[in-house]
Amino acid sequence: MPIEPAGTVLEDHAVAVVDGRIAAVLPLREARETFQPSVFLERPDHVLIPGLVNAHVHAAMTLFRGLADDLPLDAWLREGVWPVERRFASAELVRDGTELAIAEMLAAGITCFSDQYFFPEIVAETAVDLHIRAMIGTPVIDIPTAWADDVADYLEKGSDLVHDRYADHPLISTCFAPHSTRALSDVSFTELRVLADQLDVPVQIHLHESESEVVASVEATGMRPIERLDKLGLLNASLLAVHAVHVTPAEIGRLASAGAGVAHCPTSNLKLACGTAPVKAFLDAGVTVGIGTDGAASNNMLDVLSEVRLAALLAKTVSRDGGALSGDRALRLATLDAARILRRDHEIGSIEPGKWADLACVDLMRYNSQPVYDPVSQLVYATRADQVSDVWVAGRHLLDQGELTTIDKESIFRRSREWQQRIADFRE
Amino acid sequence: MPIEPAGTVLEDHAVAVVDGRIAAVLPLREARETFQPSVFLERPDHVLIPGLVNAHVHAAMTLFRGLADDLPLDAWLREGVWPVERRFASAELVRDGTELAIAEMLAAGITCFSDQYFFPEIVAETAVDLHIRAMIGTPVIDIPTAWADDVADYLEKGSDLVHDRYADHPLISTCFAPHSTRALSDVSFTELRVLADQLDVPVQIHLHESESEVVASVEATGMRPIERLDKLGLLNASLLAVHAVHVTPAEIGRLASAGAGVAHCPTSNLKLACGTAPVKAFLDAGVTVGIGTDGAASNNMLDVLSEVRLAALLAKTVSRDGGALSGDRALRLATLDAARILRRDHEIGSIEPGKWADLACVDLMRYNSQPVYDPVSQLVYATRADQVSDVWVAGRHLLDQGELTTIDKESIFRRSREWQQRIADFRE
Repeated sequence: MPIEPAGTVLEDHAVAVVDGRIAAVLPLREARETFQPSVFLERPDHVLIPGLVNAHVHAAMTLFRGLADDLPLDAWLREGVWPVERRFASAELVRDGTELAIAEMLAAGITCFSDQYFFPEIVAETAVDLHIRAMIGTPVIDIPTAWADDVADYLEKGSDLVHDRYADHPLISTCFAPHSTRALSDVSFTELRVLADQLDVPVQIHLHESESEVVASVEATGMRPIERLDKLGLLNASLLAVHAVHVTPAEIGRLASAGAGVAHCPTSNLKLACGTAPVKAFLDAGVTVGIGTDGAASNNMLDVLSEVRLAALLAKTVSRDGGALSGDRALRLATLDAARILRRDHEIGSIEPGKWADLACVDLMRYNSQPVYDPVSQLVYATRADQVSDVWVAGRHLLDQGELTTIDKESIFRRSREWQQRIADFRE
Repeated sequence: MPIEPAGTVLEDHAVAVVDGRIAAVLPLREARETFQPSVFLERPDHVLIPGLVNAHVHAAMTLFRGLADDLPLDAWLREGVWPVERRFASAELVRDGTELAIAEMLAAGITCFSDQYFFPEIVAETAVDLHIRAMIGTPVIDIPTAWADDVADYLEKGSDLVHDRYADHPLISTCFAPHSTRALSDVSFTELRVLADQLDVPVQIHLHESESEVVASVEATGMRPIERLDKLGLLNASLLAVHAVHVTPAEIGRLASAGAGVAHCPTSNLKLACGTAPVKAFLDAGVTVGIGTDGAASNNMLDVLSEVRLAALLAKTVSRDGGALSGDRALRLATLDAARILRRDHEIGSIEPGKWADLACVDLMRYNSQPVYDPVSQLVYATRADQVSDVWVAGRHLLDQGELTTIDKESIFRRSREWQQRIADFRE
């Protein structure tokens, strides 16, 4: 399923990979005549898709998975997440949590993720070490944390440690990641905007996630968050609006005309009782939408395939149209369209010659996926992420018939348990 | 996780099974002193739960999986399902489809299902052959099908072939399964009611699934479906209302005072653009709710664990309350409460001495389930059904470390493919 051209399913085809990039997509018989490969792999009961792109995650928060459930957004932040972050956020926690997240994501067919968390330089290093692609968001917030003291410090550390270092990296791109409009003053946003324009990187921000966020913004500033970003010069093609649940038709139009992208995180939105983003309305208006998992503290899995399924299901009921967001269209949101909002659709997101060989192979020979009338339907509506058998990033075979090749499983599990014990002790 | 007492998680415990029933639930050390078992199994990284109960399914429809997606309910029935059923519904299709469904369900930790389909005697035989527990619904509808000619014939065949034969079967119970209020006249419902009272079996019916169903009923009869069932004497403790999406607060109250049960099928309801049942309102009113997958033509998987997760997620957003339907409570809906609406909570649905040893064991040692702060949260929000390692029904080990012991995998896949080819040819 090359994704581009849209709706295409090629049978008995092969993908030739040279130097980490896709050299050709052609009938198997022709491939055998044309290439003398050093490695030849056959997966006859499988579908091959572009590696899934996770449009929004806080990778390190895997270590907070299941720590605070069944709470609305505000209580979840104030009682669940923030006290633990204040005590434990550190380079060590971010490295271990990000490693667990990358293991989980690779095993689920995800080859690229857009991250937003403290110690972004550690996230970037860990991604490079484990050879996954990532857009690293450097945090910006008006309060001091373990990583930085004030907005100038956030911006400087982000610029020095991340944006400069990864300006031309094959795996890593970067963006600014202000937490939300609540978290930054107009002055801070203006400093951020100047720097983002100068470095030409996207700005990823939680936006219109909950009704209370919008109400609080109106009370504090007289403006809804999208309106305020517009006034501050941030409503443009560099904006990656995360969530965008509570938006009016006029705001959808403004996001569309600005060329902003939306990261849709359906599980997290349901779980925090925020609602469901109007995905069909976004697509009808021409807004590019990617699918994200959000962090494991609010999801609680980093499983893009199940988010694709949920996005397709929810869109039908939310728009009262059983034909809304077909399986085929939903899959595109988690591959090429997600790549587009990360500004990387020229190099990933579809199986086309010249793009990086970021690929995932999925086994359909399971009870829950048989029989197969339509492989796309089967993949979206009747497949679980454990059926991902193989994953490649830039041609490197990272998941080989269910086994991760760059991950020390026992070490990850041991460190996860240690963090869990320390954090659980602290909370008692 | 015994489910009863509610909220309990026992660590380092054992379950002793004698003659297919649970003899004791006790600390492992004590178990070693008390019992000299013929078989002793240890699963140290796992949780043990009662086998999941699928409150509503059309098992044989696995053979129609993915045949008609992205359609609203009416078009899905008229264009997708009914033409194929008219051509292919047969004892052979039902046997093969049910076998595939049982394989899929056992592998996903489901030990009991409530079925509604043609050739129910074949469904019952197949369930007994493969040693899964089931409530077999015998269909009733005012039009002739391959299985019966008219309502008298449906009722007679149901009574003779199913209800009489399985009156005291350890694995099989039975119910009547009229398709919907649209599908039966008042006269037919009255005949059905007399017989259901006489045999003392439940009545499982699709009820208030879509808005158009309710509107059509008002147009045709002047009454909403629940009102009509009430007038016909069918709104009572024997009623298993499937879906119940479009219900008023007054109707919720009537279902509660009647003692009727509800089968909640969240994926199917979303996919057919029907909406989401008000589960929290049902529970607050005292209505017992079980969770079902519905058939694979509208879901498209028979995966109760993922339905539990979705039910918990949706309830939060639908009721605008992040605390609505906790993970713990949601799990109960798919075990003890589902058993209750099938009238089998005295013998299954929890891990308690005297009940059948219908059990499922789930491996949490996966990237997506680590670390573990709260095993219930992990099971509901961060576990996929492929993590089910072992399943027992009445003590018989049907899934042994991921391998089904009573299923001929190659034969099932071969027959599924044959049906798929015949059906796909017919549709071209």
